[in-house]
Amino acid sequence: MSDMALNEAIHTQRAIRHFKPDPVDDAIIEQMIEAATRAPNGGNQQPARYIVIRDRDTKAQLGKIFDELGQAMSYGAPDRTPWPDVPVLIAICTVPGTEGAGHPPTSEASVLPAVQNLLLTARSLGIGTVLTTRFRQREDEVKQILGLPANGHVHVIVPTGWPARRFGPTTRKPVEEITSRERFGTPWN
Amino acid sequence: MSDMALNEAIHTQRAIRHFKPDPVDDAIIEQMIEAATRAPNGGNQQPARYIVIRDRDTKAQLGKIFDELGQAMSYGAPDRTPWPDVPVLIAICTVPGTEGAGHPPTSEASVLPAVQNLLLTARSLGIGTVLTTRFRQREDEVKQILGLPANGHVHVIVPTGWPARRFGPTTRKPVEEITSRERFGTPWN
Repeated sequence: MSDMALNEAIHTQRAIRHFKPDPVDDAIIEQMIEAATRAPNGGNQQPARYIVIRDRDTKAQLGKIFDELGQAMSYGAPDRTPWPDVPVLIAICTVPGTEGAGHPPTSEASVLPAVQNLLLTARSLGIGTVLTTRFRQREDEVKQILGLPANGHVHVIVPTGWPARRFGPTTRKPVEEITSRERFGTPWN
Repeated sequence: MSDMALNEAIHTQRAIRHFKPDPVDDAIIEQMIEAATRAPNGGNQQPARYIVIRDRDTKAQLGKIFDELGQAMSYGAPDRTPWPDVPVLIAICTVPGTEGAGHPPTSEASVLPAVQNLLLTARSLGIGTVLTTRFRQREDEVKQILGLPANGHVHVIVPTGWPARRFGPTTRKPVEEITSRERFGTPWN
């Protein structure tokens, strides 16, 4: 367990797309997922499910879809370690029936905060990650590869490994440019 | 700025729905939003926009919608400080046109990780928050109250204030119960 400050983890987190070939132990993955479970979620229904993929053939099947979609991107997919060579892919999914009766359908707001806990905890342990969603355009194929029921969802796939590039900082808009007071468009300052 | 460890922030974050009447200064809100900007988002398009609401009449209008929807919930809305008495509501929104040309439409995966950074940073500063989405069932009215264009979205509203109840811990499922190896349903252990 790392004692890295929240503030440092947040300010040095960045997308890591290049990984060393070294394996990532189960103990690290378990710390990441345990942290993810602590995130807020609607009615404490905890709908997120995690699939930890190290099998090279599965990674290659998912990577093929990801690469093909990247080639179609008008703004150019970033360079990266090919998915078969990424040590671990973590798929974050939901499957109907994990919510209690009477609850509204699973919202991404009950899944994505958990993903951010996962990524921040990875960062604090020196592990690189990148949040990907591009595969959603071919989600049915992805679900089949991962053995998910047809009514399930794969929200995010997170390539995970020891980083071959450096962490942060990132470039972001200043607060006053994206913040309004009382109503949208009323300047903060 | 707090030096709280990431691990402590994650493990003591919980929904805070009861607030003291004390005001929350702009400097604290700015720290929370600045941390939010650091979260991953697709193509670094940074689509999230923040509206910081302290006006009692606006809080009352939003609270009325929230309360009415709560009364319709089959599993019972939790007890809480009425929204007009909550010091600050932070609405996290997106508006088309904040993305660059050729980018896919804004995904919640480019908004919710920022929200989690906001909540964790609040926790580290001793500020209580709760992530709400229930208002989405009447999003058109909410957008009108907040002056958002019709094609914008309000993803989350976060009641924010000094807590009148204690932080964490939370009750969550164990990792092995929600994690599969290689394919969905294959036990972790």
